[in-house]
Amino acid sequence: MSVNVMNVFEQLESEVRSYSRSFPTVFHKAKGYKLYDESGKEYIDFFSGAGALNYGHNDDQMKAKLIEYIQEDGITHSLDMASKSKREFLSAFQSSILEPRNMSYKVMFPGPTGTNAVESALKLARKITGRTNVVSFTNGFHGMTLGSLSVTSNDFKRKGAGVPLSNTTIMPYDKYVDEPVETQMKYIRRFLATNGSGVDAPAALILETVQGEGGLNAASMEWLQEIEKLAKDIGALLIVDDIQAGVGRAGTFFSFEPAGIKPDIICLSKSIGGYGLPLALTLFKPELDKWAPGEHNGTFRGNNLAFVTATAALDYWKDPSFEKGIEEKSQMITSFLQLMIDKYPALEGKLKGRGFIQGIRTDIPDLAGKVAANAFEQGLIMETAGPNDEVFKLFPPLTIDKEGLQAGLDKLDAAIDQALNA
Amino acid sequence: MSVNVMNVFEQLESEVRSYSRSFPTVFHKAKGYKLYDESGKEYIDFFSGAGALNYGHNDDQMKAKLIEYIQEDGITHSLDMASKSKREFLSAFQSSILEPRNMSYKVMFPGPTGTNAVESALKLARKITGRTNVVSFTNGFHGMTLGSLSVTSNDFKRKGAGVPLSNTTIMPYDKYVDEPVETQMKYIRRFLATNGSGVDAPAALILETVQGEGGLNAASMEWLQEIEKLAKDIGALLIVDDIQAGVGRAGTFFSFEPAGIKPDIICLSKSIGGYGLPLALTLFKPELDKWAPGEHNGTFRGNNLAFVTATAALDYWKDPSFEKGIEEKSQMITSFLQLMIDKYPALEGKLKGRGFIQGIRTDIPDLAGKVAANAFEQGLIMETAGPNDEVFKLFPPLTIDKEGLQAGLDKLDAAIDQALNA
Amino acid sequence: MSVNVMNVFEQLESEVRSYSRSFPTVFHKAKGYKLYDESGKEYIDFFSGAGALNYGHNDDQMKAKLIEYIQEDGITHSLDMASKSKREFLSAFQSSILEPRNMSYKVMFPGPTGTNAVESALKLARKITGRTNVVSFTNGFHGMTLGSLSVTSNDFKRKGAGVPLSNTTIMPYDKYVDEPVETQMKYIRRFLATNGSGVDAPAALILETVQGEGGLNAASMEWLQEIEKLAKDIGALLIVDDIQAGVGRAGTFFSFEPAGIKPDIICLSKSIGGYGLPLALTLFKPELDKWAPGEHNGTFRGNNLAFVTATAALDYWKDPSFEKGIEEKSQMITSFLQLMIDKYPALEGKLKGRGFIQGIRTDIPDLAGKVAANAFEQGLIMETAGPNDEVFKLFPPLTIDKEGLQAGLDKLDAAIDQALNA
Amino acid sequence: MSVNVMNVFEQLESEVRSYSRSFPTVFHKAKGYKLYDESGKEYIDFFSGAGALNYGHNDDQMKAKLIEYIQEDGITHSLDMASKSKREFLSAFQSSILEPRNMSYKVMFPGPTGTNAVESALKLARKITGRTNVVSFTNGFHGMTLGSLSVTSNDFKRKGAGVPLSNTTIMPYDKYVDEPVETQMKYIRRFLATNGSGVDAPAALILETVQGEGGLNAASMEWLQEIEKLAKDIGALLIVDDIQAGVGRAGTFFSFEPAGIKPDIICLSKSIGGYGLPLALTLFKPELDKWAPGEHNGTFRGNNLAFVTATAALDYWKDPSFEKGIEEKSQMITSFLQLMIDKYPALEGKLKGRGFIQGIRTDIPDLAGKVAANAFEQGLIMETAGPNDEVFKLFPPLTIDKEGLQAGLDKLDAAIDQALNA
Repeated sequence: MSVNVMNVFEQLESEVRSYSRSFPTVFHKAKGYKLYDESGKEYIDFFSGAGALNYGHNDDQMKAKLIEYIQEDGITHSLDMASKSKREFLSAFQSSILEPRNMSYKVMFPGPTGTNAVESALKLARKITGRTNVVSFTNGFHGMTLGSLSVTSNDFKRKGAGVPLSNTTIMPYDKYVDEPVETQMKYIRRFLATNGSGVDAPAALILETVQGEGGLNAASMEWLQEIEKLAKDIGALLIVDDIQAGVGRAGTFFSFEPAGIKPDIICLSKSIGGYGLPLALTLFKPELDKWAPGEHNGTFRGNNLAFVTATAALDYWKDPSFEKGIEEKSQMITSFLQLMIDKYPALEGKLKGRGFIQGIRTDIPDLAGKVAANAFEQGLIMETAGPNDEVFKLFPPLTIDKEGLQAGLDKLDAAIDQALNA
Repeated sequence: MSVNVMNVFEQLESEVRSYSRSFPTVFHKAKGYKLYDESGKEYIDFFSGAGALNYGHNDDQMKAKLIEYIQEDGITHSLDMASKSKREFLSAFQSSILEPRNMSYKVMFPGPTGTNAVESALKLARKITGRTNVVSFTNGFHGMTLGSLSVTSNDFKRKGAGVPLSNTTIMPYDKYVDEPVETQMKYIRRFLATNGSGVDAPAALILETVQGEGGLNAASMEWLQEIEKLAKDIGALLIVDDIQAGVGRAGTFFSFEPAGIKPDIICLSKSIGGYGLPLALTLFKPELDKWAPGEHNGTFRGNNLAFVTATAALDYWKDPSFEKGIEEKSQMITSFLQLMIDKYPALEGKLKGRGFIQGIRTDIPDLAGKVAANAFEQGLIMETAGPNDEVFKLFPPLTIDKEGLQAGLDKLDAAIDQALNA
Repeated sequence: MSVNVMNVFEQLESEVRSYSRSFPTVFHKAKGYKLYDESGKEYIDFFSGAGALNYGHNDDQMKAKLIEYIQEDGITHSLDMASKSKREFLSAFQSSILEPRNMSYKVMFPGPTGTNAVESALKLARKITGRTNVVSFTNGFHGMTLGSLSVTSNDFKRKGAGVPLSNTTIMPYDKYVDEPVETQMKYIRRFLATNGSGVDAPAALILETVQGEGGLNAASMEWLQEIEKLAKDIGALLIVDDIQAGVGRAGTFFSFEPAGIKPDIICLSKSIGGYGLPLALTLFKPELDKWAPGEHNGTFRGNNLAFVTATAALDYWKDPSFEKGIEEKSQMITSFLQLMIDKYPALEGKLKGRGFIQGIRTDIPDLAGKVAANAFEQGLIMETAGPNDEVFKLFPPLTIDKEGLQAGLDKLDAAIDQALNA
Repeated sequence: MSVNVMNVFEQLESEVRSYSRSFPTVFHKAKGYKLYDESGKEYIDFFSGAGALNYGHNDDQMKAKLIEYIQEDGITHSLDMASKSKREFLSAFQSSILEPRNMSYKVMFPGPTGTNAVESALKLARKITGRTNVVSFTNGFHGMTLGSLSVTSNDFKRKGAGVPLSNTTIMPYDKYVDEPVETQMKYIRRFLATNGSGVDAPAALILETVQGEGGLNAASMEWLQEIEKLAKDIGALLIVDDIQAGVGRAGTFFSFEPAGIKPDIICLSKSIGGYGLPLALTLFKPELDKWAPGEHNGTFRGNNLAFVTATAALDYWKDPSFEKGIEEKSQMITSFLQLMIDKYPALEGKLKGRGFIQGIRTDIPDLAGKVAANAFEQGLIMETAGPNDEVFKLFPPLTIDKEGLQAGLDKLDAAIDQALNA
């Protein structure tokens, strides 16, 4: 990277840019689990566009469909008009995802970003229940527009709102305090299911099953089940924001599948488009589809290029070996991380997360950041998470092969070693 | 359109869908100013993706660049990392748009939809001023997430929030009451520049220079100049939401150019991506760039396919004849609409808007809707606007040729005739 | 006043104290329209406890009843239990005030201060209509608790809230802009009675017929009638805050009587207790009495000493000559103020208000304050009003005799003269 | 009580009246711990005006001073002007209350009701810290105006607001969940003292040391000390709302004295006036006195009759035997209530509260209400508390003699017996 090429960003782009500071180079090409900068330097991608590239970069099958569609002058932008590519996506989503899981949900295209899905979910829950309050959870992250931000816990991001955030109540996420689920739930029920607590009856509870930005906190299946039960008991809707943990990241298409719960509303985005193209879905039980036409909208609801790649991406899920492969590689990651914790006691590491959303927490100040910075030096892209950036986070593409995964893990080992011993 | 192909949408897609009801067919291909449905029926596009397709559908030059980029495995999704295609866009935007207009602005990528640009603009204005209140204007439309919705005037959309919207004050847009600008401004100043009015000192004034959704109300240049002056006087920032009226729609790249004003913050989206791909920019004067890294973010900030087409689209603006062409065709539209008003007195029509954002207002109940519905029957896509859908709105691509434009206008003439006489 | 006696206040009482700075002495006794400080110095009272002492200080008839009640150990504090003295008050209020005016209203005791009456009125209006927004008017003042403050316009007082005030919309009070009532109403109707204005349908419109704190702005009868009509048209309740202008201050018992309107809710406090004792009433049309028991409450709702004096005070209104006397003295005040304006052109005075709530506005900086300060030196107590303290305000007791009134006016003449010529 | 005398209330007074339903008679006279209705029937008062009559009704010494002051035409109403009687109160409060307790506080008169004290405390805390959020506690009650209501937990009362209440966060009060203080505090600290919890840094923590309305929950001294420490650690002010538990009700003048804490702000009202007359104080540490003059105000801040009786009431506290007597009688109450619990196992009673703010909780539906209703039949006035009215509450005057106390307790015994066995 020469200084002058970065100058363009420094001179013209806002100071708000962030990842360009963690990864100070100019990227140019990408394929599968690899990124290349302008100088041709190769990087292994343990970041996956913060979960938007679960199928890796520029997947060949999707790419072929995409180019074909563009070549044929398929309609690109269609708002919420009916289009052939949208119909194909809806049908494929129904047959490849919903039906096999015995799930009955209506699909809404709320605008092509995660925060649009969350905002529409909050609107719908408030409309259905006639209530204004929404319960969110400690360390949750749901987006940066005002409604989504009001259910997000990060102090720095909340302050950015510039106005007090309202109509929400925070409850402790699983293991936020170190108590058995039963004790935790007693506490939450005390607040949400009795008079006099001062918590206004909520329209919804919104949560991630694994908190990506919040530090890779993974809720237990028992806790998720209890929360679903509580929501029913108090007449509130359960919203699972599966934007980061979904689409396979936690090991199954929907992250909550192992818990056997059926959320009332599900938010999807990031990898749902398959190719890294902007797309978001809000799913809800058919009986909740009380929207009036146009009550929520957005210009880029009909991103047909994303419909095309999203449809192609669903093919992965037709073959059971795909999910099995995720599981095997997840175990590789778990074993490796456990090994690191044992090998480097000075790390004071703690294993976090599950599936392809795992990492190590270390409360030694700045250490996780150093590991990630060293990794970049080693040619490995990864980021930190948690309110104090105390977790380094492994987000390889689900499609990475074992050799690639091992190569990345080896680089990480070196990065940890360097952080502790340099 | 056979019934069963629509069934997919009825069965699987949410009731919130809207344009698919106005335009009841399944679109498949598109080129320039033409759309084609599955049966091959051709439609002239006087809608342009609600302003997102100012350059028409699948422009050949952009298409070539897009396919080339995809073929070469250019990075598709890059968050806010530095990428070659982003740098090329920034450089082109600087050299083709900002410099020739003698404008000095920093560029922020706030997430790829208009509402993200607006939300980020509101955050920045509140941060800079330390104030919470924001002044918006009657019939303004700025987006559907909670912050943008709080500055949007449409009753139906506001109610959809499900919570009271706060931290905003509404002022009358130009000509909202039928008074000279001087009288109007006296009123607004009385509220914003004196003690005791009960309007808390605002962080910003946010407005569209021509209100697209609000009924094609075009502010006069004098009013815009007075508003800019007022904002300065009271220490508030002026935000121009140029998402719909900008990128040539109102005749110049920025809609406010004829007024000679320099907004503190400018929101762009819709057609900035060129090809109908999701992209949004928040521009602000360099001295306002007080963002901390990551204080606002979003997963799809780095939509490189859109950078590629956006860069190519800027080429149009290098040739002065492009803007001149817009002007000539705008005059065709104006003349035609005036002719319609004269030809059909029963329409009780009133000319609205300017440039390529023009239409006719008729307060005869449901008439504008009938015109648009008839137009669709005639093979012309257009929509209505205004709080009571009282305006039919002509939004052809800027790149339409005069023959295409005339063909569309002829269809519109027939549609009006049919609406009045059938 | 010796320094040491003030020391107690400086050392022990908060800096928030205000009138003790305008009137720097220690008051001790009071009778009728006269106040006496500790040194025995006599002051004529053109202030009347900011409208809480319309019957003057320590009225002999009320005093006798009050002492008798205390002597007999009548119950003093009774919350909202039934008490004999409360019943007597209710009966007297019904027979002496409501019936003669052909008014049918339920009486609520919301807590003994004006702000309690306003807060309860806002709650009731929101409950009845199911709407959250409330329209208030420029320069209005309704109290200092959070709900009342949200409908108060004074910038300094609003900032004191420490949080953004919400769920309210400001509209221009009569003559806020210099236009005929018809033009003003067209503007207000445009905002409140049409779609797309961005003003959420209000639960209520709240206003004072003469704005005491806001600068003695007196609404015209026509404007009040139009506002009543508008409220009906849009399904909003009309709340008249008659706390300062009511109980005879504007010339009739209710300030709005000359307009012939029937507000849905009326707030009374200040002089309703007769003797300066804390009492407040919220009146509403019987069909609006949808309160659940205890839905609004307060410890001092049952201030029986105030019931006793309030009942005695109502006797004044049995004799028609009382109201006639107010009118005659009001004319004396008007004539005098007009004379001052003519006599002192340097004052650039403008007559404000009506009845016993009149004053002179002068926009010469600090001049009104100087007049009031000089008046105090002369032994006349009066205060300023308006967002910039630009009005000096005459608030004599209604019971003042003409000699006393003239003596006060003479002092004021001297104070003006001194302010302009010293 | 004849039907027709109640008719006045039914016909003229709002349905919002509440205690007049629990105690269906018309009260007329009162002395010490006794109330008399119009028919002359005597009632023992275990209610004390909900804590506003800690010195009983119409105390002879205060009565004499009050009548003397009225006879002499002492000024009655003085806003926040300096008056002799206010100075005497300030001096007495300083010498009799603050100095002996080694407390240094400025005194603010925020308007004469408890909710005014709370609203002013919230304003001040927000001003001092520049923060908007305030932490309140489960089952807390602080008043019925919008700011106070936002920190009140009762669902029914909150709904009465008619708007979502904002800028507050609820934390669990001591023993809200059954855990040791250390565990409870770990939880609260986790929320208030770490990043990522989603609780915005608070301006203040507001609490009652014994929750009167909330069900006589008494915080432990250890918990109060830990809360004070936490507040300091996070830069928040500690506000103790001592309106109901203070002025001796919990056994000492300030309820928090046994805990040894020094709140930053203290709210007093109810019994501070001594005679049941409206008065309220906001006390704060001198360094917090950052009010601008008039930044909070109110018409009845200067209720001089209340200053006179409040000053006289402070005499009680000069004699140490007064506090000792409260303690002895508190023990009588405790012993009696324990006896009741043992004697009536069917009551499933649990002892609640401390000092003169004690009662019995029974979760048998409606039972506490029956006990209170029976007590009224027996000639004993008492009320219920708690979110489900599950506590019957003993609030005798502090000045009751042991015979009177015993007589009331005997009636209560009979009322319980009747409730269980009738």
